[in-house]
Parts: sequence; structure tokens; C-alpha cells
Amino acid sequence: MNENLVWHNAGITRQNRERLNEHKAVVVWFTGLSGAGKSTLAHALEGELYKMKCRTYVFDGDNVRHGLCGDLGFSDADRTENIRRVGEIAKLTVDAGLITMAAFISPIKKDRDCVRGLLEPEDFIEVYCRCSLSVCEKRDVKGFYRRARSGEISNFTGISSPYDEPENPDLVINTDKISIELSVSRIISLMKERGVFSVSV
Amino acid sequence: MNENLVWHNAGITRQNRERLNEHKAVVVWFTGLSGAGKSTLAHALEGELYKMKCRTYVFDGDNVRHGLCGDLGFSDADRTENIRRVGEIAKLTVDAGLITMAAFISPIKKDRDCVRGLLEPEDFIEVYCRCSLSVCEKRDVKGFYRRARSGEISNFTGISSPYDEPENPDLVINTDKISIELSVSRIISLMKERGVFSVSV
Repeated sequence: MNENLVWHNAGITRQNRERLNEHKAVVVWFTGLSGAGKSTLAHALEGELYKMKCRTYVFDGDNVRHGLCGDLGFSDADRTENIRRVGEIAKLTVDAGLITMAAFISPIKKDRDCVRGLLEPEDFIEVYCRCSLSVCEKRDVKGFYRRARSGEISNFTGISSPYDEPENPDLVINTDKISIELSVSRIISLMKERGVFSVSV
Repeated sequence: MNENLVWHNAGITRQNRERLNEHKAVVVWFTGLSGAGKSTLAHALEGELYKMKCRTYVFDGDNVRHGLCGDLGFSDADRTENIRRVGEIAKLTVDAGLITMAAFISPIKKDRDCVRGLLEPEDFIEVYCRCSLSVCEKRDVKGFYRRARSGEISNFTGISSPYDEPENPDLVINTDKISIELSVSRIISLMKERGVFSVSV
């Protein structure tokens, strides 16, 4: 081979991947208080999408905070950087053709808006998992609220750190009022409206 | 719905995704000097895998350095952090079922070993794109070598910053001696040997 040969990019694109997958890629971003059911809802949605043979992935604190963002804490600056990185990865996994779910408290409006700004408008669906603080605190699945009230955990959203409610989310799910099944069905309906399951071949 | 109800994880796993994709997930890591053909080879491999209906993605400087790692430079510490983040993402995209290609100079052996250490042994294929410095420098597709020689770019691998040759890579491709087609075919053969295309349903 000539050493000066310039190799060419085979150029597999997002559109190629979407055709192969028979659905479009999109980010479904779940925001809300700790305990509002973001991650559970994301995984339940993934379960339904799997039945529809969709290619999916869920990013949440469990798989991001210990690895990619293991160097970050919970100060405002670190929260911002955490969300920035997740946004950048979501941009890449959308390019990879995946229906990408992200379940993060993401309490700061400008951080969520930054993620939205990384993506095309049709590629971002913001789902606000709305649940009163009192219900989240009663659930307290991981014991975080108790520890935040006692001061053992600082900067805890809703207790010692603010949560900016979304002003104009694509969907609001009142997770203390409706079932998971209905919640998932509402998200899938919105995805259908957005054309996620229609791919022109 | 009872406000104390604990929601359950639908639990779609990597194995579910691999069955859906009809291939296994794996990381193919391309290391070598700038101009050795890493990114080109990764994209050529992706082109072939696409014909085989595989789900793939390529991470390289083009899509990572401006986004996720846009905060990093080229000091040793920043190179290490760059590779760490790519390794962590590759771990997630393997979990997502993708054949994940990563094309990075990744000059520091311990950084590459860290990535290997994040993954199961069968999930990591290190491909050393071997090409003499003189050939890379003659190619100089992006003009980096000229700028490195003039001192305009500092810490440039092979010129002003070291490259640790892999001691025991899974595959060596002499990119100044064999064609892209043959290179791709060798990688696919190794993937076959590793069982990437055999999924028990």
C-alpha cells in the first residue's frame, strides 16, 4: 500500500443506524426530586421499549456516579459538570442510534437547558417526575432524606439544596398519583407523536 | 397508587440487548501514533460491521475532544483523564450492547491498562496500529507533525511526548504495509474467534 494513501471514512451515520434499528434515536430526560421515581420510570420505559425491539440505554446515578463521574461530588459546580458530561454522552448515544434515557435529579434549570442546547429540539424530551417532597421523604427508599435531615448528608436537593421546577417540560408525570404502567404509556404516546417509531427507509 | 409503593427495575440487561442484536458487545481499542490510521481503520471496520447488521459506535478525538472532554488539554494528567473517561463510556456502551470502537493515540501504557481493567478480559481487544514515525510524519494529513516540529504544538506524541508501544496487544496491524480491507478482515477474524458473532439465544 502506498504510504501516502489517505484512508477514507466509511461514514456510517445516525440515519444508517436508525434505519437498521427501525426507530429514531432520542433522549428522554427524567428530572425530579430524589425518590420521585425517575430511575424506576426510566427502567420501566426501557422494559416496554425492549418488547418493541427498540435499542435503548438508561444512564442514572448508579452507572455514572461511580464510574465516569466518580471524580465529582455534590457541590453546585460538580453537579453542573456531572450533568454536562451526561448530556455530552447522551448526544453521542443518540448519534449511535439509541433511545437514551437519563434519570438524574438535575435540580438546576440552566444545567438541563445546557443539555437541551446540545441536542436538536426534536431529540430531547424532558419528563418532569413531579412528586411532593413529603411523599418523597416518606418513601425514602435509600434513607437519604433521614440522613439529610440529620445533617449527615449536606447539599441534599429539597432539604438543603434547591430544586428548580421545570417551567415548560415536554411531559409532567405525577408519580405520586398515577401508576407506572400509565406513566410509561404516556411517555410512549408522546414518543409516537414525535415520530420516534416512524423511520423512512 | 400507594405513595409507599416501591417501584421495581424492569431489568433489561446486556444479555437481553445482545440477544436482540444477535451479536455480543465488545470494545475494540485502536492505539498508535497520530497518522497511523486508527480512526480510519475503526470507521472502515464499522462499515463492514454495518453490512453484517451489527450495532456499533466509534469514539475518537473528533467526537470526544470537543464535547465530553472539551475541558481537557494534552498534559499527561489530561491525557490520562481523557482515556479514563473514554474507558468508562466504553464500559457503558458495551453494557448497552454496542460493538464499541475507540481510536485514540492513548500513548501511556498504564492508561490503556486501566481501560482494560475496567472491562472483563473477553470484552477488550487491543489493536496496535503500528506505523513508523517517518511514515506518519510524511502522511501528516492534518499538518500536526509540521506544527509539532516547528514547536507550534507542544507535547506531541512521537515528537515531544513519548509513545509506549503495546507489549502484548491482541492484534498488531502494520498500517504502512497492508491494505485497509485486509486490516479489517483480520480484526473481524479475531472477533469471530472471540465469539462476538455467536450469541446463544
